[in-house]
Amino acid sequence: MNINPLRGVHVHAFALAALLVLGAHAQAQTDPLPSWNDSAAKSAIVEFVQAITTQGSPKFVPQAERIATFDQDGTLWVEHPMYSQVMYILESVPALVKAKPELAKGEPFKTVMSGNREAIAKLPEGDLIKVAGATLTGMPVETFQAAVANWIAEVRDPRWKKPYTDLTYLPMQEVLKYLRANGYKTYIVTGGGQDFVRVYSEATYGITPEQVVGSAGGTKFGYAKDGRPFLTKEPRLLLNDDKAGKPQGIHLMIGRRPVASFGNSDGDRQMLEYTKAGDGARLAMIVMHDDAKREYAYGPAKGLPATKVGAFTQAFYNEAMKNGFIVISMKDDWKRIFAFE
Amino acid sequence: MNINPLRGVHVHAFALAALLVLGAHAQAQTDPLPSWNDSAAKSAIVEFVQAITTQGSPKFVPQAERIATFDQDGTLWVEHPMYSQVMYILESVPALVKAKPELAKGEPFKTVMSGNREAIAKLPEGDLIKVAGATLTGMPVETFQAAVANWIAEVRDPRWKKPYTDLTYLPMQEVLKYLRANGYKTYIVTGGGQDFVRVYSEATYGITPEQVVGSAGGTKFGYAKDGRPFLTKEPRLLLNDDKAGKPQGIHLMIGRRPVASFGNSDGDRQMLEYTKAGDGARLAMIVMHDDAKREYAYGPAKGLPATKVGAFTQAFYNEAMKNGFIVISMKDDWKRIFAFE
Repeated sequence: MNINPLRGVHVHAFALAALLVLGAHAQAQTDPLPSWNDSAAKSAIVEFVQAITTQGSPKFVPQAERIATFDQDGTLWVEHPMYSQVMYILESVPALVKAKPELAKGEPFKTVMSGNREAIAKLPEGDLIKVAGATLTGMPVETFQAAVANWIAEVRDPRWKKPYTDLTYLPMQEVLKYLRANGYKTYIVTGGGQDFVRVYSEATYGITPEQVVGSAGGTKFGYAKDGRPFLTKEPRLLLNDDKAGKPQGIHLMIGRRPVASFGNSDGDRQMLEYTKAGDGARLAMIVMHDDAKREYAYGPAKGLPATKVGAFTQAFYNEAMKNGFIVISMKDDWKRIFAFE
Repeated sequence: MNINPLRGVHVHAFALAALLVLGAHAQAQTDPLPSWNDSAAKSAIVEFVQAITTQGSPKFVPQAERIATFDQDGTLWVEHPMYSQVMYILESVPALVKAKPELAKGEPFKTVMSGNREAIAKLPEGDLIKVAGATLTGMPVETFQAAVANWIAEVRDPRWKKPYTDLTYLPMQEVLKYLRANGYKTYIVTGGGQDFVRVYSEATYGITPEQVVGSAGGTKFGYAKDGRPFLTKEPRLLLNDDKAGKPQGIHLMIGRRPVASFGNSDGDRQMLEYTKAGDGARLAMIVMHDDAKREYAYGPAKGLPATKVGAFTQAFYNEAMKNGFIVISMKDDWKRIFAFE
C-alpha cells in the first residue's frame, strides 16, 4: 500500500505542469506584434528578444540586465507639428499672466499672449526657455503634477481631436509590452521634462515614474506653515536629457548600459551609440517618419523635408546604416499606427 | 464515456492549487524577521506591511506605490569608525600618487601618504573633498567600477577582519526581503557615492543599480580612438544626497514619495519627514547604535557619546519622538546583528 499522501499529487502536478508548458508554448505562437507588417524590422525585434531570453544561447542576458530605453517624442507618440510639452508651456501662459499681470507688458509673454502662431514660432530659443522656466518651476511638485494631469485630460490635438495620450504608436506599445513580458525593464529616456512625462507615463505606457528619465531640474526642500515638508521646483537644470545628455542620464538614473534602445532623431544618436557599443547582443532602432498620409513625413533621410522638430539628418541616417542601427519605416513596417484607427 | 481529455486535469489542477494555497499559508505563518526580538519595533514593521498589502484595508497601497527607502551607512551596514567609502578614498591615494608623483609633495596627499591616522582624521573637510575628487573622478565609469569591485573583494575591516559587505545587519536584510516579498521596491538612499554603492548593491542587498540613489556627479560623453563611446566621471556634483538632498534625490530618481523609510542619523531626518508627511499609512524608523558590545554605541540620544560619523543628535531624537518615528534599539530589538555570528 502506498502511504505517501503526496505521491498522487506529484503525478497531478506533473500533468498540470505539462499543461502549463503547452499553454506557454501556445502563447508563444501568438504574434506579439500584430500591428507590425512581417518585415525585417519586426524580425529583428523578435529574433533579438528570443536570443537574449534563451538560456544557453551565447546571447543570453540575465533578467536584471535587460534594460530597454525609448525616446518619447516621435518614437512613442506624435511630436508633430509641436512637442506636446511645448503646447503645455504656451497654454500655461494665460494663467501665469493672470496671476502676474505685469508679465504681459514685456516679451516674450506679450507675443505668447497675442496668440499669433507665426510670431510665437519665431521666438528665439532663449525666450522659450524663459517661458518654460516661468511655467514649469516655482511651484510645489504636487501643484505642477496636478496642473499637468488636468491639462492632459482636457486638451485635444489639432489634427485628430484626441487627447495627446491617445496619439501613442500602437506598434511601439506592443514592443513595450512584448519586452516587459520577456523580463525587460522599459524606460523612457526623453529630452522632455521628467516631471511632466512622469504624470501620465504609467497610465499611457505602463511605465512607472521611476522608469522615466528626462530633462530634470533641481528642487528645494522646505516646510509649510503647518510644518509639513514639501519640494518646490527650481529653475536649476540638473540634466539636459538630449544628445550626449541621454547616455549621461541613463548612467545617472539607471546605472546600466541598455541592451536595446529606440529613437527617431539626432537627439537619440548618442543613446543608440552607447547601447550598441556594449558587449553581447544589442538592438538599436530608429523610427522614420515617412508616412505623410497616416501620420507625417519629415526628416531629410530618403529625401524627406527637414523640420524644426525631430531633426533626422542625412548624416545621422548614414551613420545609422554604418553602425547597424535598424530603421523602422512607419509607412512600410506598421500595419496600424494608432489604437483608435 | 468522458471524452474530454482536460476534465481529469482540471481536478488535478484544483488539487495542486489547493496544495499551493496551503503552502503559501504555511509560509505566511513563518516568521519573516527571525533575527528580531518580539518587540514594539518588530510589531510596527509587521503590522505596517500587513495593513498596506491587505485588499480592502483603509491603509491598502497599490503595488506600484510601495516604495521603501533605506539609508546605507549605519542603517544597513556598519559605518564606524569610518565610512567604507572614505576608506576607499584614502586607500586609493597610493596608486594615484604612483601615477602622479608630484601630488605627494603637497597637501593633503602628503598627510594621507604619511599613514598617520590622527593627522588624517584632522584634515579639514575641503581637503577630504579634494582627495575624493582625485580618486573618484577623471576616469571612465567602467574603470572606476572595476577598481571598487576589486577593493571590495580584497579589503577587510579592522575589527571583524571581514569584507565590508559581510558587515550588513542581518535584521535589516530580513526587512529588505520581507518588504520585497510583499511587493515593495526597496531603494538605497545614501549620502555615499551612487556609483560606488551600485557596484556591490545587487550582490550584497539584492538591490539593483537603478534602485540606488546616492550622491552623484556628472559624466562626460566622448569617443575612444576606435570610435567606441564612453563616459568619464567628472568632479561636478549633481546631487549631494544628504539631509535635504535625500528627498530631492528621491524626487529626482524615483519620482514618488516613499511609504516607508529607514535611517539612523540627522542626515536622514528630511527623508523620514518627507515619507511621514504623505497621506495614508507611513513608516519611519531609526536605527540607534546602542550596542557597544556587539557593534558600537554612539550618538547623544539616551546619553550616548557623540561622534563625527552618523550624528544622531538629541534634537533629532526629540523630533523623532514628536513625529512618531520609531526607534530601533540594536541592543534590545536585534537578536542577532550579523549573519556570520
